[in-house]
Amino acid sequence: VNGVHELRKPYLLLLGDVENPINAKTAFGLRDWVPEDCLGQLRFTSQAVNLRLRELTVREAAALGAKTLVIGIAPPGGELPAGWREVLIEALEAGLDIAAGLHQRLKDIPGIADCARRLGRHVHDVRHCDSKFPVGNGVPRSGRRLLTVGTDCVVGKKYTALSIARVLATRGYRVDFRATGQTGILISGRGIAVDAVVSDFVSGAAEALSPAGAPDHWDIIEGQGSLFHPAYAAVTLGLIHGSQPNALVLCHDVSRKTLASLPHIPVVSLDQAMPAYLQAARLTNSRSCFVGIALNTSSLSPLEAKEVLARTAERLQLPCVDPIRMGVEPIVNALEHFDAG
Amino acid sequence: VNGVHELRKPYLLLLGDVENPINAKTAFGLRDWVPEDCLGQLRFTSQAVNLRLRELTVREAAALGAKTLVIGIAPPGGELPAGWREVLIEALEAGLDIAAGLHQRLKDIPGIADCARRLGRHVHDVRHCDSKFPVGNGVPRSGRRLLTVGTDCVVGKKYTALSIARVLATRGYRVDFRATGQTGILISGRGIAVDAVVSDFVSGAAEALSPAGAPDHWDIIEGQGSLFHPAYAAVTLGLIHGSQPNALVLCHDVSRKTLASLPHIPVVSLDQAMPAYLQAARLTNSRSCFVGIALNTSSLSPLEAKEVLARTAERLQLPCVDPIRMGVEPIVNALEHFDAG
Repeated sequence: VNGVHELRKPYLLLLGDVENPINAKTAFGLRDWVPEDCLGQLRFTSQAVNLRLRELTVREAAALGAKTLVIGIAPPGGELPAGWREVLIEALEAGLDIAAGLHQRLKDIPGIADCARRLGRHVHDVRHCDSKFPVGNGVPRSGRRLLTVGTDCVVGKKYTALSIARVLATRGYRVDFRATGQTGILISGRGIAVDAVVSDFVSGAAEALSPAGAPDHWDIIEGQGSLFHPAYAAVTLGLIHGSQPNALVLCHDVSRKTLASLPHIPVVSLDQAMPAYLQAARLTNSRSCFVGIALNTSSLSPLEAKEVLARTAERLQLPCVDPIRMGVEPIVNALEHFDAG
Repeated sequence: VNGVHELRKPYLLLLGDVENPINAKTAFGLRDWVPEDCLGQLRFTSQAVNLRLRELTVREAAALGAKTLVIGIAPPGGELPAGWREVLIEALEAGLDIAAGLHQRLKDIPGIADCARRLGRHVHDVRHCDSKFPVGNGVPRSGRRLLTVGTDCVVGKKYTALSIARVLATRGYRVDFRATGQTGILISGRGIAVDAVVSDFVSGAAEALSPAGAPDHWDIIEGQGSLFHPAYAAVTLGLIHGSQPNALVLCHDVSRKTLASLPHIPVVSLDQAMPAYLQAARLTNSRSCFVGIALNTSSLSPLEAKEVLARTAERLQLPCVDPIRMGVEPIVNALEHFDAG
């Protein structure tokens, strides 16, 4: 689809000389979620972060069939070190595309865009979106869609969506994970950073991201932001309207009292969040409903977590899981009996 | 403020050879709302739309003190006719800035940006936004803010806001109209086309548009889109959160049963719209409330209109007016007794 990043796999992961694993979160995510797509790693020093993948040069990786060099690290300072430019050019010349989830655009680094154009390679700045989308039209589309939503940012919307998509696939369902942020795009090889889309076109971009599908096909769409976050609610609402979700999963961190990035704003309760999300979703899908709750209970003991999950499930009459502690099977079980209407 | 278009007045209005008044709506709006800022008109032929302003060449207008040449028409096809380029260059050379509300950017027309840079002039593509804004922070600001919101697009949000700002000014209040779309920006000489801002930064742009003010100062903010429009609700929600409105005015067309641009989506009732707008606004201003209703009753007879307005005012216990038929004084009266808390 025009405007949606489409990456070629498998990948060679560029780690360079980044030594702090915190700056390599995306690379670890790729290794953990799609190890079959990670052909090897390219490190400049033996002190660099080690994903325990095969050590490959650009040329070795190309010979083994790698299609894209992925920068899955956040360089200190956010800008790509000047010395890394050479390996990007080398990759383009060896036949690889390049992809990065940096704030800085690879295309703005002198010589990169020109070299790629000359050689017919693609440069994917997956955190950015240079494409135009039509405005949203709200016309119902075939196929089933699930969207993860949250009471704040960084509450597990991506992890929950990836987990649900994986379990559905394991059970033989036709399913696509639809990525809306840079890490998800690199993992799935496809998607749109919806927060980088001009506000007039956010819902249109979301419509393009999950096009009409077979009646029994599931799109599991990665949520962004929160309706209750004053910086990012616009992104969230456009994504909801364009996604037309049949099913919603609400993600929440039980320990969080105020927004992670805005400590003067309290986090809403599940009971406040759910009707607001339903009202928003029902503008474009009148049958939209919640199918589960995903709680981050990492602040609780196993026993406390079990109690909170059981109490929440009982009270809301919905499957309630901590995806990291116990997986998302109870939510997927609910999807198996889902009546899309 | 960085990122907010700031135009220099007075204007010379360029009408060229556009003959259909429908394509000159913005020019008529400028003449009607700010006649004191419209020094004259520049027409290429006597068949062109006539605003009954003084006919001036670029050089005559510059000599009389004009500061900006404004393209207040929509050329057939949307693109500026090639032959118009010459008069833009002439204006820049005569010392004028240029401004336009076209989809096409003046800055993309060969030679315009270069010429302006060389001469130190400004080119304002007011429908566009090239600036970066910080993300919204939701921190309360001093001053009073009113935002117009709607049950659909094109229901009178700009007209209502302009009218309220004008009446407040007439009564001696300190007030600014805050423009969020191209016509409003040209009328007031200042503003941001919020629908052109990247979705991550919409609420931050709205915060920049109506900065902290004196405690008794009113910002009257032009609304955009509708929370109930699946294409544009993202813009609307970001604008609400960033505006932190003390006061909301709901605009509605009594004859409209489905969205003007999406006939498969019904228009919500006032009773559905009001709680949703309040919930959204109260995320960043817990005391936000409605102070009036603006109905477009042009489809009704005067007697029918009077009845509908009286019935609505009685039922909702709010001033209810048709701004075009009778002005907005009852709403402004309510603002005079407003307790900002």
